[in-house]
Amino acid sequence: MARLVLKFGGTSVGDVARIKNVARRVKAVYDAGNEVAVVVSAMSGQTDSLVKLVDAVSSKIDDAEYDVVVATGELVTIGLVALALKDLGLKARSWPSWEIPIRSDAAHGKARIQSIEVQPLLEAMKRGEIAVVPGFQAMGSDGRITTLGRGGSDTSAVALAAALKADRCDIYTDVDGVYTADPRIVTKARKLDKITFEEMLEAASLGAKVLQTRSVLMGMKHKVVVQVLSSFSDAPGTLVVDEEDGVEDELVSGIAYSPNEAKVTLIKVADKPGVAARIFGPLSDANINVDMIVQNVSDDGKSTDLTFTVGRSDLKRALQVIESAKAQIGYERLVSAADVVKVSVIGVGMRSHAGIAYRMFQALADKGINIQTISTSEIKVSVLIAEEYTELALRTLHTAYGLDAA
Amino acid sequence: MARLVLKFGGTSVGDVARIKNVARRVKAVYDAGNEVAVVVSAMSGQTDSLVKLVDAVSSKIDDAEYDVVVATGELVTIGLVALALKDLGLKARSWPSWEIPIRSDAAHGKARIQSIEVQPLLEAMKRGEIAVVPGFQAMGSDGRITTLGRGGSDTSAVALAAALKADRCDIYTDVDGVYTADPRIVTKARKLDKITFEEMLEAASLGAKVLQTRSVLMGMKHKVVVQVLSSFSDAPGTLVVDEEDGVEDELVSGIAYSPNEAKVTLIKVADKPGVAARIFGPLSDANINVDMIVQNVSDDGKSTDLTFTVGRSDLKRALQVIESAKAQIGYERLVSAADVVKVSVIGVGMRSHAGIAYRMFQALADKGINIQTISTSEIKVSVLIAEEYTELALRTLHTAYGLDAA
Repeated sequence: MARLVLKFGGTSVGDVARIKNVARRVKAVYDAGNEVAVVVSAMSGQTDSLVKLVDAVSSKIDDAEYDVVVATGELVTIGLVALALKDLGLKARSWPSWEIPIRSDAAHGKARIQSIEVQPLLEAMKRGEIAVVPGFQAMGSDGRITTLGRGGSDTSAVALAAALKADRCDIYTDVDGVYTADPRIVTKARKLDKITFEEMLEAASLGAKVLQTRSVLMGMKHKVVVQVLSSFSDAPGTLVVDEEDGVEDELVSGIAYSPNEAKVTLIKVADKPGVAARIFGPLSDANINVDMIVQNVSDDGKSTDLTFTVGRSDLKRALQVIESAKAQIGYERLVSAADVVKVSVIGVGMRSHAGIAYRMFQALADKGINIQTISTSEIKVSVLIAEEYTELALRTLHTAYGLDAA
Repeated sequence: MARLVLKFGGTSVGDVARIKNVARRVKAVYDAGNEVAVVVSAMSGQTDSLVKLVDAVSSKIDDAEYDVVVATGELVTIGLVALALKDLGLKARSWPSWEIPIRSDAAHGKARIQSIEVQPLLEAMKRGEIAVVPGFQAMGSDGRITTLGRGGSDTSAVALAAALKADRCDIYTDVDGVYTADPRIVTKARKLDKITFEEMLEAASLGAKVLQTRSVLMGMKHKVVVQVLSSFSDAPGTLVVDEEDGVEDELVSGIAYSPNEAKVTLIKVADKPGVAARIFGPLSDANINVDMIVQNVSDDGKSTDLTFTVGRSDLKRALQVIESAKAQIGYERLVSAADVVKVSVIGVGMRSHAGIAYRMFQALADKGINIQTISTSEIKVSVLIAEEYTELALRTLHTAYGLDAA
């Protein structure tokens, strides 16, 4: 017998038939002799509709009232899933966050879970009752409803699994696991049986839409065994595990890509202390998320070129911010490109192996793909290339690292 | 300066434009120097949609989970109304029932409010903050969300007004007050400036869809001054007051009608003790609501005829129940009619005046309308007539009692 947390996303509970399907999956897991807690998102599209209502009613931002409205989506699904489970003859109960409680700080709209009072849930589960818990929300330290930000349901599930000391946290989604590359582009992509938290983290932040970054961090910290699997098939999923838990002996576990990137380059920025702060301070004030930052040495030794990337939808605002701060920053020219994609090679194995980056650059050069910018971390190499080469680059790298399915 | 509770029903908050309209109305009341609490229903249609989801997911009845799902409707509107008020520059906050809390028993789906912890609301209102509270729901004695049953938002508003010791509870709706008769049928109907709780209670239970019966009882018990008025016009509404507060000196305050009635008569029931219990016990067990009950003396002195009315949608089930209990009850024949309407004359004045009922019977007889059944209370006379005479009967009685507008 194991204690399991099962999380179902918005697509998995998207309509009445799918909710009944979720109930049957939960029943199968329960009937196998497990203690079960279920975490659910809002029905797909529901959160967007609620956000639209909020935006239509008020031009001002009020995160606490936003939370009251938007959090109703998951309250609907916990009730419906509990009903569907009972309809199958199981014992079940929905647990709104304040009834448990799941406590968070009071940062409305982007709260962080602080603690979960698991005793009532454990008692219910011991009685053979399935606990149905809303993702994405908590009770803030101000006593009001909070939400955790988009994708927060993954975080709720992993946090609950950690608090319950669950044997595993199964994240049911509309893909059946983590692949070596996006299977819609790379037809030879393989599903991974295992991936490390570190790799998953890079993959999440590099565009793979499988798990939310914060949930991966939380799983890593609390050593929760996480499985990503499909709610629409019976295939086994991908286990996300600690490095020491024995990952496949591969240097590179996958190729990720992040579309909708834009590149901004400041030509001939004065090469002296404090200049980076003068560039990125105003961008941060404007809530623009900067991803890659690359600074090259300039010919003359006195000035440098600095390149950074932002989400494409933020490009116009980023350029305005940099232009209006031109006097304080000091640069010669500003150039930008909105037709770039970030392609990344990920793998814990590359820590101890030279030549991983070289093979990437060579493979791309062989196909005539120009690398615009390079950024590396311990377990990934990312390059910015022209968007039109996206598919070619992904397939080329997938083959170059020997990832293709037999 | 007064302390006021303003209640807006589902039609009044039915879309974004109407929610903004509600905010402007609340602002006008607040700007006039009042302390204000607002009680809102779910957006019209929303509760029905949620109930449909519940019914689609499960064939079993589970009132606690039903409450979790259905209560989300008002949580959406309290957030949106608070946002709309803040958008107008006011201070406002939404208060889900468990944050106050509003406590009820644990009779899910039909809970009764037991107490309201008003201190946090009073403090907020003293700070000039408008408190926005959900109607129709509470926190049950089991710690879970409860709902009060259909129309419960009126009850929430009156209960909140009583707990806050408010000077008045304004119920905004889509009609602009209480009329002497349904103005869609009786064009000469007049809006009443005042009506007593007792009359309002009879009117509510006799088919006038203005205030929910339980809210009237609560207003009467706690001596809350209730006003019914339109959220779409600036006309003054109708005050519901205690009898001693000086109602217009009229014998009859209005004519009500209740369509969708059905009549069942048991011919030759044994005229002995216990027979009524043997008839109405099984009906009660089947959750069939019986309204009028009339028993006539039979010719032979040994048996009697017994007539009762039920909602038309319950007729088929009522007949089945009575037929399957025929042996225990003992009667000769069963007859029924589904084409009847109940017309009632209401007025506290009739307590001390003979002749009210006589005038009704005479007026109907003059038009050739046959009275099938009669039932009276201290302040009303109800008759059952053929449905096709509804409009003629209402207009005739409205004129007969001198209620027509000049």
